[in-house]
Amino acid sequence: MPQLNENFFDLEKNYLFINIAKKVKAFTEANPDADIIRMGIGDVTLPIAKCVVDAMKKGADEMGVKETFRGYEDSGAGYDFLREAVSGYYKSFGADVPADDIRINDGAKADCGNIVDIFGQDNIVLVTDPAYPVYVDTNVMSGRKVIYANSNEENGFAAMPDDSVKCDLIYLCSPNNPTGSVYTREQLAQWIAYAKKNNAVIIYDAAYEAFITDDDIPRSIFEVEGAKECAIEMCSLSKTAGFTGMRCGYTVVPHELVVKSSKGEDVQLAQLWGRRQGSKFNGVSYPVQCAAAAVFTEEGQKQIKENIRYYQNNAGVISRTFDELGIKYTGGKNSPYIWFKCPNNMGSWEFFDYLLENAYVVGTPGEGFGKNGEGWFRLTAFGDKDRTVEAMERFRKLLGK
Amino acid sequence: MPQLNENFFDLEKNYLFINIAKKVKAFTEANPDADIIRMGIGDVTLPIAKCVVDAMKKGADEMGVKETFRGYEDSGAGYDFLREAVSGYYKSFGADVPADDIRINDGAKADCGNIVDIFGQDNIVLVTDPAYPVYVDTNVMSGRKVIYANSNEENGFAAMPDDSVKCDLIYLCSPNNPTGSVYTREQLAQWIAYAKKNNAVIIYDAAYEAFITDDDIPRSIFEVEGAKECAIEMCSLSKTAGFTGMRCGYTVVPHELVVKSSKGEDVQLAQLWGRRQGSKFNGVSYPVQCAAAAVFTEEGQKQIKENIRYYQNNAGVISRTFDELGIKYTGGKNSPYIWFKCPNNMGSWEFFDYLLENAYVVGTPGEGFGKNGEGWFRLTAFGDKDRTVEAMERFRKLLGK
Repeated sequence: MPQLNENFFDLEKNYLFINIAKKVKAFTEANPDADIIRMGIGDVTLPIAKCVVDAMKKGADEMGVKETFRGYEDSGAGYDFLREAVSGYYKSFGADVPADDIRINDGAKADCGNIVDIFGQDNIVLVTDPAYPVYVDTNVMSGRKVIYANSNEENGFAAMPDDSVKCDLIYLCSPNNPTGSVYTREQLAQWIAYAKKNNAVIIYDAAYEAFITDDDIPRSIFEVEGAKECAIEMCSLSKTAGFTGMRCGYTVVPHELVVKSSKGEDVQLAQLWGRRQGSKFNGVSYPVQCAAAAVFTEEGQKQIKENIRYYQNNAGVISRTFDELGIKYTGGKNSPYIWFKCPNNMGSWEFFDYLLENAYVVGTPGEGFGKNGEGWFRLTAFGDKDRTVEAMERFRKLLGK
Repeated sequence: MPQLNENFFDLEKNYLFINIAKKVKAFTEANPDADIIRMGIGDVTLPIAKCVVDAMKKGADEMGVKETFRGYEDSGAGYDFLREAVSGYYKSFGADVPADDIRINDGAKADCGNIVDIFGQDNIVLVTDPAYPVYVDTNVMSGRKVIYANSNEENGFAAMPDDSVKCDLIYLCSPNNPTGSVYTREQLAQWIAYAKKNNAVIIYDAAYEAFITDDDIPRSIFEVEGAKECAIEMCSLSKTAGFTGMRCGYTVVPHELVVKSSKGEDVQLAQLWGRRQGSKFNGVSYPVQCAAAAVFTEEGQKQIKENIRYYQNNAGVISRTFDELGIKYTGGKNSPYIWFKCPNNMGSWEFFDYLLENAYVVGTPGEGFGKNGEGWFRLTAFGDKDRTVEAMERFRKLLGK
């Protein structure tokens, strides 16, 4: 009889977004005429930029011709043309990330989860709370001990290290999902110093970097000195270029990042990660990589930046409404997320139901991201402009004095 | 200091195909004029069928239009249109596999590796030897004990169960990589009976099913009674439709497959697997799923079957040459692989060098697939027709009496 991985039984019974989907489904079945505005799951709504679609179609055409057909990639790490493009993108905002340190993947979620394969069972994992559930769930599945650094109203939902706490792996996300908070260069330098003191590795999720507008907020942890000896970075084109349904991202494991084995030997994490991927991953679809490379061209950057500005405008609409209504929030700037305190001291699931039933607006209860999310709520700026304006009208009606 | 997953240190130092690539690179650098024929790695060479390319381009176009844009898939299990198509494909050869039991993935390799996440550490894993290295490597990475069932000349390289051996997980692959052997319905029934007696789970790799021509050889383990209570099946479009660079496959975890937890509770493996995928996978690119669905249309089946016939002809060319030269082999029929005994009692790496240096033909040393591969060698039928004929000419010159 096979023994199951019973760590799965320690997971929360249902995945946050599945719970929400069920509640919304039940509500729409009971209220078929309700005009629901979805501002819950962090999915984009604008279509893929034309030059990116064209690049994918060109890649598809190449697959249909013997001379240009591409089978397995030799390494599975991504084609050089894409790794070079990503490296060039890093350079454009001042981070020196060589193409050899980059592996292309089918999205940051997979790598966020899979990266744990290269670490042992007994590591202590530090996660800022609230956080994207994948960090916790994938470590619980592996039976690792997860401890939390509190992000809360006092620190602007940007947890900082506590020297009295020991850990081995640290998950950071900036701009943060769900709170929209960002780390400054100085704050990241503190995390790096803390990681080095603890010989810990930082797993840095930069999925929302494209939303940063302030020059003094780093878009990559590798803009900060010392990061290459202690950090892995994951990024994705999901939010940058609307790739949630296209599936492409990248992970940087710097060649400088070395951890000692139990025998005292230096081990490059990049080598373990390459071995993991070599055995369990066969690379990203060639036409998808063509599409991804087009994102990094001059025309691609122009087109995607228009989309990002569209979402940033939505974030502005939400922020201004909350300012007007006196609702406390973080994010909205440098981030597509607006994280706010539920009015009238409601609990976050309580407010979810209240908002759905009275304004037909779907959001995400903060509680789903961790205990510090209790009483807080997330909206996203990824919706349609007019619908976002309409949702804010409903907020005014529901919550205005 | 993070503890590493030191099970990685128990892996063979280099991945088989990376070793081969290095040897070939060194040889071509030393002999730039050598006209090398590659019959090593199991990659296809014919382009993607036109209707499949067209479907992908249509999918890409949809992504570029707001009304038809698709973001995240709700479940990440694959779109219904594709799961239904796969279910219909199973039906076409007599296997009843409901769409709900199917999850779409980015290739069988990933799922073969990732499926181990749902099982505990202490399981005993039975792998037929020789085998596709991923079965062993991904279990070694997880620290599981791997034992072997011998496939050898005596049993036609199709290992059968030994009642005196106990195990929890069983990897089977038919048509087999690397040996090209196939299991009959009766042989699979014996494996199923053995699995049930041991309360073991079979992980069945059907990646080469499209090459089966004999009616009495099952294309899915689910054609055999009792399989749904003890088997998981993985399949891929890589070899069926030339998707090695497109990346799409599927895994079937029947809803009937239930394993007892340590507390004696019934657990559906499909549920654990769904939870694993829900946390670490975000589904396959929409245009890739469109391409995959086109494979299962009438026109798609017509076009891919032409390609498969082309490869089958190559297999015939190789088989007939080996018959003529008196070389012992398995496969070549129902399989794109020809697995043969190295002439003159050479070792398999010795024969690799001999063949590369004297005939400029690259194959795969059997030893790379396990100890029973020592002295055996794999060629693939995935090459160009004329080059395959040319390679066989060189075999005749080198090995003919």
